[in-house]
Amino acid sequence: MVYIQRRETFSASHRLYNPSWTEERNFEIFGKCSNKRGHGHNFQLIVVVKGEVNPETGFVMNLADLKNLIRSNIIEFVDHTSLNEDIDFLDGIIPSTENLAIAFWKILSPLIVDHGAKLHCVHIIETENNSVEYFGK
Amino acid sequence: MVYIQRRETFSASHRLYNPSWTEERNFEIFGKCSNKRGHGHNFQLIVVVKGEVNPETGFVMNLADLKNLIRSNIIEFVDHTSLNEDIDFLDGIIPSTENLAIAFWKILSPLIVDHGAKLHCVHIIETENNSVEYFGK
Amino acid sequence: MVYIQRRETFSASHRLYNPSWTEERNFEIFGKCSNKRGHGHNFQLIVVVKGEVNPETGFVMNLADLKNLIRSNIIEFVDHTSLNEDIDFLDGIIPSTENLAIAFWKILSPLIVDHGAKLHCVHIIETENNSVEYFGK
Amino acid sequence: MVYIQRRETFSASHRLYNPSWTEERNFEIFGKCSNKRGHGHNFQLIVVVKGEVNPETGFVMNLADLKNLIRSNIIEFVDHTSLNEDIDFLDGIIPSTENLAIAFWKILSPLIVDHGAKLHCVHIIETENNSVEYFGK
Amino acid sequence: MVYIQRRETFSASHRLYNPSWTEERNFEIFGKCSNKRGHGHNFQLIVVVKGEVNPETGFVMNLADLKNLIRSNIIEFVDHTSLNEDIDFLDGIIPSTENLAIAFWKILSPLIVDHGAKLHCVHIIETENNSVEYFGK
Amino acid sequence: MVYIQRRETFSASHRLYNPSWTEERNFEIFGKCSNKRGHGHNFQLIVVVKGEVNPETGFVMNLADLKNLIRSNIIEFVDHTSLNEDIDFLDGIIPSTENLAIAFWKILSPLIVDHGAKLHCVHIIETENNSVEYFGK
Repeated sequence: MVYIQRRETFSASHRLYNPSWTEERNFEIFGKCSNKRGHGHNFQLIVVVKGEVNPETGFVMNLADLKNLIRSNIIEFVDHTSLNEDIDFLDGIIPSTENLAIAFWKILSPLIVDHGAKLHCVHIIETENNSVEYFGK
Repeated sequence: MVYIQRRETFSASHRLYNPSWTEERNFEIFGKCSNKRGHGHNFQLIVVVKGEVNPETGFVMNLADLKNLIRSNIIEFVDHTSLNEDIDFLDGIIPSTENLAIAFWKILSPLIVDHGAKLHCVHIIETENNSVEYFGK
Repeated sequence: MVYIQRRETFSASHRLYNPSWTEERNFEIFGKCSNKRGHGHNFQLIVVVKGEVNPETGFVMNLADLKNLIRSNIIEFVDHTSLNEDIDFLDGIIPSTENLAIAFWKILSPLIVDHGAKLHCVHIIETENNSVEYFGK
Repeated sequence: MVYIQRRETFSASHRLYNPSWTEERNFEIFGKCSNKRGHGHNFQLIVVVKGEVNPETGFVMNLADLKNLIRSNIIEFVDHTSLNEDIDFLDGIIPSTENLAIAFWKILSPLIVDHGAKLHCVHIIETENNSVEYFGK
Repeated sequence: MVYIQRRETFSASHRLYNPSWTEERNFEIFGKCSNKRGHGHNFQLIVVVKGEVNPETGFVMNLADLKNLIRSNIIEFVDHTSLNEDIDFLDGIIPSTENLAIAFWKILSPLIVDHGAKLHCVHIIETENNSVEYFGK
Repeated sequence: MVYIQRRETFSASHRLYNPSWTEERNFEIFGKCSNKRGHGHNFQLIVVVKGEVNPETGFVMNLADLKNLIRSNIIEFVDHTSLNEDIDFLDGIIPSTENLAIAFWKILSPLIVDHGAKLHCVHIIETENNSVEYFGK
């Protein structure tokens, strides 16, 4: 079993906001992250895939395929957008980095199985100080 | 003459948009950077100051003072905001990184003179691939 | 279960030295790390916390709380100090990065439980080439 | 149990190529990575070792010993070489990063046992976007 | 006058070798960099362009145009190649990083003039420790 | 004229302290940087050298020579030391990063002339947020 990692980046804005709360409650909990018109980040998305090494290729999974899969299923949808308003698969979800990681897992996991490997971890780096990892359970 | 650099970071959203143009023209020129609800970045702001070394302190200017000066005059205003809507000193300006650098220069330059040194460069890193430098002329 | 990471930094000096050994034995084992007047590093401390995502906030634990908790319980004590002489909770301990990680775990672990989450890992990066991880057992 | 990491770097060229395939098949699968005269990378090799902390030293294993062990058994052989042609221990192996990680594990694992610790992970970073981890099984 | 920077990356192999010298002389001067079958790097190419800010766009030059220009005129030719054998515009040139910077300048400089700006610097980072800058004279 | 850069690193402790001042005055000016038993950093030293490219080598100056010159004249003296007490060439100098840059310039400048090139800049990165550059005048 070998683990391979592919990093992609996207730039997006978001606002932490729970619509069932008052504005005051939102600012109390989320602070400046709840600023009305949003703020933004350069997110780094690191996808970790595990599997056996194919002796014919030396690959767990072709990293070019993994790159294309992440770009066409995630990056194209989220890059240069507002995560609160522009993304169908985030509809009704507070776009915290934790929830992003879970949402990306749901999209990527079955697609990677189709390539004969398994998704191991979705790691999202929000800033140089903050990041989130999700292992699917 | 010695040059000192202080790096600070802020996270903000912006939208590249010229209000005197049609939507179509904006998308033609700015592409995805003109997405209606904005997108965002972790900006790095590097301020370069030059001056003689004070023999009593070994300093061009106390970096703790420079840090406070950048934080209280720039970072507190721009961090976790929408650069298009939330910032008085960017009113009427397309918030490209070039224009940010010029706007920050105007604010910082006189304040650094007050500390007996001179502003040399405002460097803004927008993404790991894109950055802008302004030297005041 | 989601894992969140918060990075903080501190600058400190230390000396690797076992007082029950001769000077010669110390230099034989620790080399230049045993230099009498110490040396120093910019340490990076990465704290990994795990827990369920709270559906009301989208958070495992508020990263602002985690930041404050690390700063007020660790960084304020160790930043800009000599780890051999200035830190009560390191008294009698050789301040190797391994021992730092264990000492920080003991302080942070109960505090994070108080926030409804669990400490997963204390990761300390000593230089760009050397780092240590401790998982509590 | 504490985990320590040591990073070393090497620069090498390689070509992904399966000699039992036609040229066409090689390009179909490996793309530009199969360019006839090779290409190259600055590889980062991160070796993770686990063990108990020795109370006399505060060390799992002396990082100076780990550094020397990695340099004399791996880096001296692979740095500034062609991985396809210059390395005896890679003879007959497609030099994918996956296969490099497995080959390095085989060399390092018994040597680290000799120092009273255990190899936990061989992590190779090929580019800022691609990396591989191997845990020995 | 504002300066903008765009970073692109490529992976290539090279060999430092002066064909008018003996093998012995080559190894004496170039050391391991003269290894017969080459070695390789992940090169970072940073292109710095200067110009006035266009008040209609807030841009010195559209960074999307600069990205495309670097990719289609440099990266597509050098990525995943052997710089000694595969590149027409490096024919007869020792592919040191210095010579790469000069060769890239010659290609990029007229193209950037066509976009109403001026090339200021070609910066090539060969490894985390070595880099080269060329300012055109 | 081409500019080449070589990066080396060293870990050291220092204390900002002016012996002609009272303790109170030292803390007022230098804050926690004046902590009695010092603190420390992983310093990065970047040496920038300029010169013509030698057509026989493609080099401004052999980077292996520059590496050895920096290591044997600077790094061997300052690595794993206390900059206040252990370094002859810093005797009587407040070891601020500004003063380090000037002291290193004085040592390196004549040595680089001996290799047919000129020292352009001594750049010292003290932390990820603070750095200093000196150009010799």
